[in-house]
Amino acid sequence: MSKTLNVGMIGYGFMGRAHSNAYRQVGQFFPSSYRVVLKAACARDAAKVKPFADQWGYESIETDWRKLVERKDIDVIDICTPNNLHKEIAVAAAANKKMILCEKPLAMNGIEGKEMVDAVEKAGVANMVWYNYRRIPAVTLAKRLIDEGKLGRIFHYRAKFLQDWTIKADLPQGGQGLWRLDVAAAGSGVSGDLLAHCIDTAIWLNGDMSSICSMTETFVKERLHTLTGKVEKVGIDDACIFMGKFNNGSLANFESTRYARGHKALYTFEINGENMSLFWDLHDLHRLQVFDYRDEGKIRGWKSVHVTDNSPDHPYMDKWWVPGLAIGYDASFTHQVADFITALEKGERPLPDFRDAQRTQLVLDAILDSAKNGNWVQVKQV
Amino acid sequence: MSKTLNVGMIGYGFMGRAHSNAYRQVGQFFPSSYRVVLKAACARDAAKVKPFADQWGYESIETDWRKLVERKDIDVIDICTPNNLHKEIAVAAAANKKMILCEKPLAMNGIEGKEMVDAVEKAGVANMVWYNYRRIPAVTLAKRLIDEGKLGRIFHYRAKFLQDWTIKADLPQGGQGLWRLDVAAAGSGVSGDLLAHCIDTAIWLNGDMSSICSMTETFVKERLHTLTGKVEKVGIDDACIFMGKFNNGSLANFESTRYARGHKALYTFEINGENMSLFWDLHDLHRLQVFDYRDEGKIRGWKSVHVTDNSPDHPYMDKWWVPGLAIGYDASFTHQVADFITALEKGERPLPDFRDAQRTQLVLDAILDSAKNGNWVQVKQV
Amino acid sequence: MSKTLNVGMIGYGFMGRAHSNAYRQVGQFFPSSYRVVLKAACARDAAKVKPFADQWGYESIETDWRKLVERKDIDVIDICTPNNLHKEIAVAAAANKKMILCEKPLAMNGIEGKEMVDAVEKAGVANMVWYNYRRIPAVTLAKRLIDEGKLGRIFHYRAKFLQDWTIKADLPQGGQGLWRLDVAAAGSGVSGDLLAHCIDTAIWLNGDMSSICSMTETFVKERLHTLTGKVEKVGIDDACIFMGKFNNGSLANFESTRYARGHKALYTFEINGENMSLFWDLHDLHRLQVFDYRDEGKIRGWKSVHVTDNSPDHPYMDKWWVPGLAIGYDASFTHQVADFITALEKGERPLPDFRDAQRTQLVLDAILDSAKNGNWVQVKQV
Amino acid sequence: MSKTLNVGMIGYGFMGRAHSNAYRQVGQFFPSSYRVVLKAACARDAAKVKPFADQWGYESIETDWRKLVERKDIDVIDICTPNNLHKEIAVAAAANKKMILCEKPLAMNGIEGKEMVDAVEKAGVANMVWYNYRRIPAVTLAKRLIDEGKLGRIFHYRAKFLQDWTIKADLPQGGQGLWRLDVAAAGSGVSGDLLAHCIDTAIWLNGDMSSICSMTETFVKERLHTLTGKVEKVGIDDACIFMGKFNNGSLANFESTRYARGHKALYTFEINGENMSLFWDLHDLHRLQVFDYRDEGKIRGWKSVHVTDNSPDHPYMDKWWVPGLAIGYDASFTHQVADFITALEKGERPLPDFRDAQRTQLVLDAILDSAKNGNWVQVKQV
Repeated sequence: MSKTLNVGMIGYGFMGRAHSNAYRQVGQFFPSSYRVVLKAACARDAAKVKPFADQWGYESIETDWRKLVERKDIDVIDICTPNNLHKEIAVAAAANKKMILCEKPLAMNGIEGKEMVDAVEKAGVANMVWYNYRRIPAVTLAKRLIDEGKLGRIFHYRAKFLQDWTIKADLPQGGQGLWRLDVAAAGSGVSGDLLAHCIDTAIWLNGDMSSICSMTETFVKERLHTLTGKVEKVGIDDACIFMGKFNNGSLANFESTRYARGHKALYTFEINGENMSLFWDLHDLHRLQVFDYRDEGKIRGWKSVHVTDNSPDHPYMDKWWVPGLAIGYDASFTHQVADFITALEKGERPLPDFRDAQRTQLVLDAILDSAKNGNWVQVKQV
Repeated sequence: MSKTLNVGMIGYGFMGRAHSNAYRQVGQFFPSSYRVVLKAACARDAAKVKPFADQWGYESIETDWRKLVERKDIDVIDICTPNNLHKEIAVAAAANKKMILCEKPLAMNGIEGKEMVDAVEKAGVANMVWYNYRRIPAVTLAKRLIDEGKLGRIFHYRAKFLQDWTIKADLPQGGQGLWRLDVAAAGSGVSGDLLAHCIDTAIWLNGDMSSICSMTETFVKERLHTLTGKVEKVGIDDACIFMGKFNNGSLANFESTRYARGHKALYTFEINGENMSLFWDLHDLHRLQVFDYRDEGKIRGWKSVHVTDNSPDHPYMDKWWVPGLAIGYDASFTHQVADFITALEKGERPLPDFRDAQRTQLVLDAILDSAKNGNWVQVKQV
Repeated sequence: MSKTLNVGMIGYGFMGRAHSNAYRQVGQFFPSSYRVVLKAACARDAAKVKPFADQWGYESIETDWRKLVERKDIDVIDICTPNNLHKEIAVAAAANKKMILCEKPLAMNGIEGKEMVDAVEKAGVANMVWYNYRRIPAVTLAKRLIDEGKLGRIFHYRAKFLQDWTIKADLPQGGQGLWRLDVAAAGSGVSGDLLAHCIDTAIWLNGDMSSICSMTETFVKERLHTLTGKVEKVGIDDACIFMGKFNNGSLANFESTRYARGHKALYTFEINGENMSLFWDLHDLHRLQVFDYRDEGKIRGWKSVHVTDNSPDHPYMDKWWVPGLAIGYDASFTHQVADFITALEKGERPLPDFRDAQRTQLVLDAILDSAKNGNWVQVKQV
Repeated sequence: MSKTLNVGMIGYGFMGRAHSNAYRQVGQFFPSSYRVVLKAACARDAAKVKPFADQWGYESIETDWRKLVERKDIDVIDICTPNNLHKEIAVAAAANKKMILCEKPLAMNGIEGKEMVDAVEKAGVANMVWYNYRRIPAVTLAKRLIDEGKLGRIFHYRAKFLQDWTIKADLPQGGQGLWRLDVAAAGSGVSGDLLAHCIDTAIWLNGDMSSICSMTETFVKERLHTLTGKVEKVGIDDACIFMGKFNNGSLANFESTRYARGHKALYTFEINGENMSLFWDLHDLHRLQVFDYRDEGKIRGWKSVHVTDNSPDHPYMDKWWVPGLAIGYDASFTHQVADFITALEKGERPLPDFRDAQRTQLVLDAILDSAKNGNWVQVKQV
């Protein structure tokens, strides 16, 4: 009775695992008319992709993604490769009329992004980008509160994504698990890896940015390159700060780094509206901090909302456990698959799709441009 | 090559779902020589168990647990029924040489518990009780720190489990989802439901208790009974406080209630040792608070340890994501299945087994006895 | 034009300093028709009291409290001695028609307390006990919310006062700064010293207790006695836990210890009402945590109210700085003097007076009785 | 025996009160060879300054600051006027050989600041600026940790000062209590008022900045002017963000606003070093958050240090109460007076003096310049 959704996964790293877990879980927690089938896993090295496929239950493997995107039994291509392969794969998959779920950031830059948007729109295939933080229930709740108009005029939006894992100067760049330090594979450093998440959420919650001014820094200038075996110049940004304006007149203050000792993956955002302010923190992802100016004056304060009620009040949570019991980071991916399927069922555009993700790409372009030239840059609008 | 572990699940409620998710996840995150197979789901009402079985991928259903425990193709019986059925099912399953994974509390009381321990030990079958909080990584880390002797002499152990979901006087008792309010099905109220968790963790971390003194209260005296349709006396304890002593000389202070407005499932414990203190809180389950007296005086303070490093430093976490990304409540069950399988592989006793869980049962007996008689009670030792 | 209030201070320790600071500050922050004059400081040892008097601006010294209480130029006697002298001094001061501000606890026990209440009431002199925590703005705000009926039916009241300063076994007992460890001077340990505060606040916020059951423990059995030079048995309670019932039907859970590694002076209380719960913590004394069930469901959470608005919304704070700027522990004494003066001006009973503080004394009696005899004890009502 | 330090106070507002309280308290908590005497209070309107003088114990009043600075019986001039009077008064006071304690920011701009520095240095008079946050014990502790080299190479410094008190569009500008909204009196908005504090602390902890890039915003463009009675253009910056570099190579990210709903006076800073990170927050000013990479891996976390030990471990706190009992915002001023006196006694330069405060002034100049011109600006070095 149910339709199948046959997934072809390219990549087997951190994201390959996170997505696979979501595909396996979605049917139990978010029943639908679709049954997700793990059809094939693909990577260049059969010795590596085979055990991955076995462990996660993929029915087959491929070692050439070009073959995978041509397979008739595949409905969806999931791109979990380093960033420099996104465009080529996506364009080929679109040409083969596959639906595409692409890891973020969409592309190496806005030019590639544009090409990808054009490809999927021309092919008319469903497409989505894994900006998974939109689907953390506390973040989704923030979106609802904003859409209800509870915040009033917005004055400020602040976001940070702080890590500390690359402080060690003898950490190499390039290769398995370290391609994010290699500019050839990643395109950029913290801006594309971490700020991309912050920007996607910000645009979703607060609309597009009009102009920005940024600075970047590379603290460790040279690192051993795993692929070449030589000490090579580090081309990525280790840290990036930018300020700017949103189209709605509010001010932006963004920062990301991998040199903030003590922070593992501290993605936080805060939005200050005339009547309400919101704050969220990935390290305690199940909580949303809410300041509601409507509250009685003497007991006004920041509310720590534990977004775990199994009721429609708290997005997605009616499908999980009982109040007070937190779900994990991984659930955000399960929610994304669930929403993708819902969009298919309703014939709607799954979000963020390539076009939507391209808005983030254009902010990233502006960031690198401004950092290079030391001036304010207008953000191109999609 | 891998052995199968065929599960027969009895019940389909909150716990039936939590355990099923664990069975489905364990192979991907904790590969072993066993493959868990969801063989059969069982409940009296076929119309209810069938959709559950379909959604979670059970191969078959049963409507009589007696048939299930006799099926040759079942290796493990998982008991997720209300408490008043635990004993009968477990004894029958043991007689049929099935391994048994039983929901907590083990039994309605110590007498039943003793019968169950005898049954599984006589049958020589592997057995375990789902005191899942032992497997929250932060809690497991607490155990490691204690076992390493870091705390020194222990002075205090405090635990609370606070909820607020039964304040409404028009909430009925009995029936699906509400059997925990019905003394005939549950045996007791917050003591068996919530304090049982607190006691299990406490005994695991701090050893057995020697004596206790308790009080209980039932705030809402009568509730509509769903099964009889009549307003009936409420027989459970809505709240329970007890104090006592551990065998190691430290003092116990425990409390549980379903009338603490503002708390969803606030299970907290704190242990104060001569050299180190630890605090944990289910609402932020991925954190362990640690006070280390060895720290330099001027920067001594409670450390908020985000127990999410994907390294052996943080129990279980090397199998999940990257530092900073929290796992959910549900993962504790996955860990428990993984540990059960490891115990099978090593031929070790999986813990907590029935004998271990009986220690908690005897404290619960003492609590109800003391509350009834208003005096101090010696805790029977297993 | 303004009347003078001539203070005679007995004692020069921690509390002597705290009260003196309050006397010096009150006129600037809480102007009134009275001018507080530091008239005389008294202690047995002139060599110790003289520098204290000079530093704090006392006009004269005395070395015999009997002389002080007879001086015509003294209006108020402030008793900051060890507990075992409270009664004798207070009775003599009352006989001399002095107003009396007595450090807490009121007395060594209820019998002494009764004698003191009788003495001041017979003499008709204004009297007050320094349970200063009532005057922390966040605590006073809690009282207001309760008095407004915002909490509805009360189910639970919990309080703790945890310290860690006596874990060292080689800390002596007795003498300057250490008389709190000497049962002869203090009467009891943590119960009279710390729980007395918790009980006073509890009675103020939640009314009298009807019955309690307690346990005490002395972890270090012998300590060198500074006054005798010998190792002597420790007579105080190092730790005390009690549970009980308030007259309004709510449950009490109280604990205090000086062996909770990591806590300096962690006095916390929480009160759970049907419609609102409140939590306060001395370590962050400027905050009140409020859970308001009236809040919209999806954004219900514990509010951290920073009780620092310089408006009448936040008790006392309109006299201090601007919003966000916290006052210290010391301000609670300044507030208490201000309120004492207001009571004098209005001809009202300053609270807590001796009669009010005697209610706490009777709970303390019940605690020691229950701990000794291991049974439930009815609390005598004033 | 003790020398007197006769204070002439100009102004009677918020800061006039804060400083006066410090002068009255310093002798009791930080005894020295000096006795501070409140000699005269000065303001244009005798009807306003007289009650202030009476309440705080000033011996006399003046209505012309020129007379005050010429009085022979005055040793110290304390400037608590709006910013536009600082220079003129300071120069005159220096000419009269008075010591000067000037409210922050030092001046309207760097040109004025230079003139003031020259004046006091030429006159050879002791001088200091009330950047009081340096003397919050937790902040002073941060300085000690940095000076001990515990942090290693510094990568990042972040500071924010967020308020929400000017969101109301009908709040007027100018006049008593509102001169901070009037550019003619204040010179700038949040940059001079709030960021000045952040910058002073930053330079103290992390050294000078080399270059910055900033943006400012005025959300409410026009406000009624109290002094003219007309709606006038608002000339101050309501919000300001800047990024930049310190001389030590670390990155700066600063922000201030009066439009962050929910924040009263949220001054926070964070510094990330190779080996240690520190975080502080004015709303909980008695705590320093410390992440120490030297800690054992499995229990590494942010430590919440309650900087209240009455031992030399915690700056200033050995003069106050007992561990766990917080002091207030006001104590920072008392500490500053105490340190000023110590500098006098030792013949040292009290810090921050005018020359030191001028470093902050030059950053403020760069901020306004960059915001106006939209480019990066080199910070002039003192």
